[in-house]
Amino acid sequence: MTKLDAVIQDLVIANRILAKEEVVDAYGHVSIRHPDRPEHFFIARSLAPDLVERDDIVELGLDGEPVRAEARALYLERFIHAAIYEARPDVHAVVHAHAEDILPFGIAAATPLRPVIHSGSFIGAHVPVWDIADKFGDTDLLVRNMDHGRDLAHCLAVNKVALMRGHGFAAADRSLIEVVRMSVYLPRNARALLRAKHLGGDIKYLSQGEIDARNRGYSPYSTETWRAWEYWANKAGCGHLVTKPGNPGSQHEPESRKP
Amino acid sequence: MTKLDAVIQDLVIANRILAKEEVVDAYGHVSIRHPDRPEHFFIARSLAPDLVERDDIVELGLDGEPVRAEARALYLERFIHAAIYEARPDVHAVVHAHAEDILPFGIAAATPLRPVIHSGSFIGAHVPVWDIADKFGDTDLLVRNMDHGRDLAHCLAVNKVALMRGHGFAAADRSLIEVVRMSVYLPRNARALLRAKHLGGDIKYLSQGEIDARNRGYSPYSTETWRAWEYWANKAGCGHLVTKPGNPGSQHEPESRKP
Amino acid sequence: MTKLDAVIQDLVIANRILAKEEVVDAYGHVSIRHPDRPEHFFIARSLAPDLVERDDIVELGLDGEPVRAEARALYLERFIHAAIYEARPDVHAVVHAHAEDILPFGIAAATPLRPVIHSGSFIGAHVPVWDIADKFGDTDLLVRNMDHGRDLAHCLAVNKVALMRGHGFAAADRSLIEVVRMSVYLPRNARALLRAKHLGGDIKYLSQGEIDARNRGYSPYSTETWRAWEYWANKAGCGHLVTKPGNPGSQHEPESRKP
Amino acid sequence: MTKLDAVIQDLVIANRILAKEEVVDAYGHVSIRHPDRPEHFFIARSLAPDLVERDDIVELGLDGEPVRAEARALYLERFIHAAIYEARPDVHAVVHAHAEDILPFGIAAATPLRPVIHSGSFIGAHVPVWDIADKFGDTDLLVRNMDHGRDLAHCLAVNKVALMRGHGFAAADRSLIEVVRMSVYLPRNARALLRAKHLGGDIKYLSQGEIDARNRGYSPYSTETWRAWEYWANKAGCGHLVTKPGNPGSQHEPESRKP
Repeated sequence: MTKLDAVIQDLVIANRILAKEEVVDAYGHVSIRHPDRPEHFFIARSLAPDLVERDDIVELGLDGEPVRAEARALYLERFIHAAIYEARPDVHAVVHAHAEDILPFGIAAATPLRPVIHSGSFIGAHVPVWDIADKFGDTDLLVRNMDHGRDLAHCLAVNKVALMRGHGFAAADRSLIEVVRMSVYLPRNARALLRAKHLGGDIKYLSQGEIDARNRGYSPYSTETWRAWEYWANKAGCGHLVTKPGNPGSQHEPESRKP
Repeated sequence: MTKLDAVIQDLVIANRILAKEEVVDAYGHVSIRHPDRPEHFFIARSLAPDLVERDDIVELGLDGEPVRAEARALYLERFIHAAIYEARPDVHAVVHAHAEDILPFGIAAATPLRPVIHSGSFIGAHVPVWDIADKFGDTDLLVRNMDHGRDLAHCLAVNKVALMRGHGFAAADRSLIEVVRMSVYLPRNARALLRAKHLGGDIKYLSQGEIDARNRGYSPYSTETWRAWEYWANKAGCGHLVTKPGNPGSQHEPESRKP
Repeated sequence: MTKLDAVIQDLVIANRILAKEEVVDAYGHVSIRHPDRPEHFFIARSLAPDLVERDDIVELGLDGEPVRAEARALYLERFIHAAIYEARPDVHAVVHAHAEDILPFGIAAATPLRPVIHSGSFIGAHVPVWDIADKFGDTDLLVRNMDHGRDLAHCLAVNKVALMRGHGFAAADRSLIEVVRMSVYLPRNARALLRAKHLGGDIKYLSQGEIDARNRGYSPYSTETWRAWEYWANKAGCGHLVTKPGNPGSQHEPESRKP
Repeated sequence: MTKLDAVIQDLVIANRILAKEEVVDAYGHVSIRHPDRPEHFFIARSLAPDLVERDDIVELGLDGEPVRAEARALYLERFIHAAIYEARPDVHAVVHAHAEDILPFGIAAATPLRPVIHSGSFIGAHVPVWDIADKFGDTDLLVRNMDHGRDLAHCLAVNKVALMRGHGFAAADRSLIEVVRMSVYLPRNARALLRAKHLGGDIKYLSQGEIDARNRGYSPYSTETWRAWEYWANKAGCGHLVTKPGNPGSQHEPESRKP
């Protein structure tokens, strides 16, 4: 398996994981930057993530348009990905999704979404809320072009996640595994905060020092990060597609534990 | 496959999707207007939607009675469908269901159900609440005849959805795929609004301009609409029944992606 | 199949349905009165309902003790059933369970559980809360003998459901199918009421006239009641055990629709 | 099957149950003290609990380090287990997990977690909240060494459960079956209390006398305790691994009821 094959296979796995964990449904998408050509990225054609296979992956440029002739329909909102890759050279993977439990935090003004649980630390201390209406007035809320995308990327700025009012979120990270993990734990952090508000009294958020300490403690292929990837892939029924890291140019034995 | 065969097959798929997505359980039903005889519509005989197959579909008139002799029991509340088709020539598909998370909005007076998320836009800015008791006093809450049905249709008026107090909702749209999508996202919009209320502060609802823009941006067989239909059908285990649109008179290859 | 065989088969199905619908887990039980000997009833031996098969059903008397020598362990709380059958000749089936979403209503004093949705009507206008501590002081909360059971039955009085503080509920009805349906919709009614309280403002409960009208409209083997039983049995994986009603002395073809 | 084989098999089952019941996901772990060498305990190597098999179990000492040379990665937080076993000779099994619904009680100061339902009684009247920041300042919240572990064990003191602020919980009990049961019902008790708070008014907690009575009424292999273990193991797909208690030195027939 070539390096590029492994990247695309991981992107297929990421699609399936996000579907199984209910971060995406028919809508929402995940992309990865081309490892050798940073001005390109991979993403599925317009298809529900749970149904994505290798041949459904297309290669787009930073204008959101396909690099090669492509007859199949593309995601309308691929410009979310293009604009974030354009603005953020440090970002190598992006998720856009409508995960239900983050939605209230983009709708209700009173309670900013902040990390309250350790697995939520990766979203960072500040999660901006982007409202497409601020600049573009009444739209269908979709990020349909680079202008929309760049405005979102501008709001995201140096952060990991931006909520999109009445719509969903965009998450950006340095690796595919990390952006998937962050996208799975983001709704969990949102639920924990919502319920803590129910209980009342003061809320103990993670401190900046704790967030920083957690960022220092994890890397994309550390044992702890990998453990989740392997687990989620098996749960999503594609454990047999998982390849071991660190050896990307060769064929690996499948990681599936439950055939 | 004839056009009518395709219509009935789609209705079977709609039944299964609504069951899998927990919009219906043993109760609730979905219908589609006859494509050539607008004074007829198709609906299952009295049966849980998850168990519906082709032979369970019956053809009814706008009085809610079967067009052909029918020995099998029919849904008691088929008059919901008949009365809406009678009142609304623009409507080609109807869902009635008890989806749990919309129920509070028909019971508690304080918070009207309105769109707060983009996938909820299709319910429209105004969702009336119909209370059968207002006109008929103490009943078993069921829409058991055309009088009940017409009163509900009158309350629905030009809207897409009416809540039914202490009971459920009726949704009406121009196509089957769209009424199914609306019925799936209606409870999600309800949950997002309920939780946004928990968080407190001002709620940002979709504006009328945003609702209008979204209505302009979608059609029954647009790529984005179809993506959801294909996904839900696969998830419900009947992806093999899906036929491609635009070619309704011929046999299509199955769309199932995960055999 | 003899009449008694059919009764026991239905009891097995009831066990599986209640497990699948998460009314019971490892704990909780369902019983049916002997059709010919009203001073006896059938219930499983001490076993999780999801695992119950025909041979696990035992026959007990109204003292809660087995009619025939029985080496296997019995449910500690079988006295709930015995005492209700003793006090209520009109009752032919009983469920005791800990369904999670009814628990808050037995713990928090402020909001009585009452019907707010039509499928919840069968619990009746009044749902008493029994607190074992009122008469017996500090116990392990279990209904371990006939004294406990009779005190619970006394609190239940002529109602359909009694909540048990910090523990669960007991439901009693004239038929097995009806007590199962009530037990499935009881938590749903509880959730609808809880969430309506969240939304705030006045709550519209079902009126006594509506509750009465609904009771008049249903019978154990009416089409609508049967539709739910057939659906739940299929969902619980035992649709092949379902026998058609009205013909209890003969062998019936299986009702399973999805083999 | 030797006694040690049975212990390890039970630990595999416990891993699978906790995963199926969503007490753990990719993270969280369960351990059991060595039955003959109380200064040793068994726990999985660093692996998602749902994927754990016999060969993944390792033997550690009370310093949290492996007894035998071990090339595979270990859980970072194995010191939770080591420190609790060190401090509490009465404890024979430990769970650490992030079960979502207990998290709010470690974040919001206003509402202590206490038993409100009979199945929650085993957590005891007092559930302390440990905040790693109190002694160690800004960390990544993980229990990475014996100092952390001992501070947690000191906070746990003589109790059964300690919440860990922004992180999860640690539970300790005299047997594996009991610590698993407590870990499953702990989040249920948390949900019941959260929702009772929603309903408002006074909350009826279990009294100390009730908690004591329940502790007297259960033992690790009593019929009622075993019923849950058998049920959960079957639900988690490993009913065939369950061995009957009381006969640990010999081969037992499988307990699986649904092959």
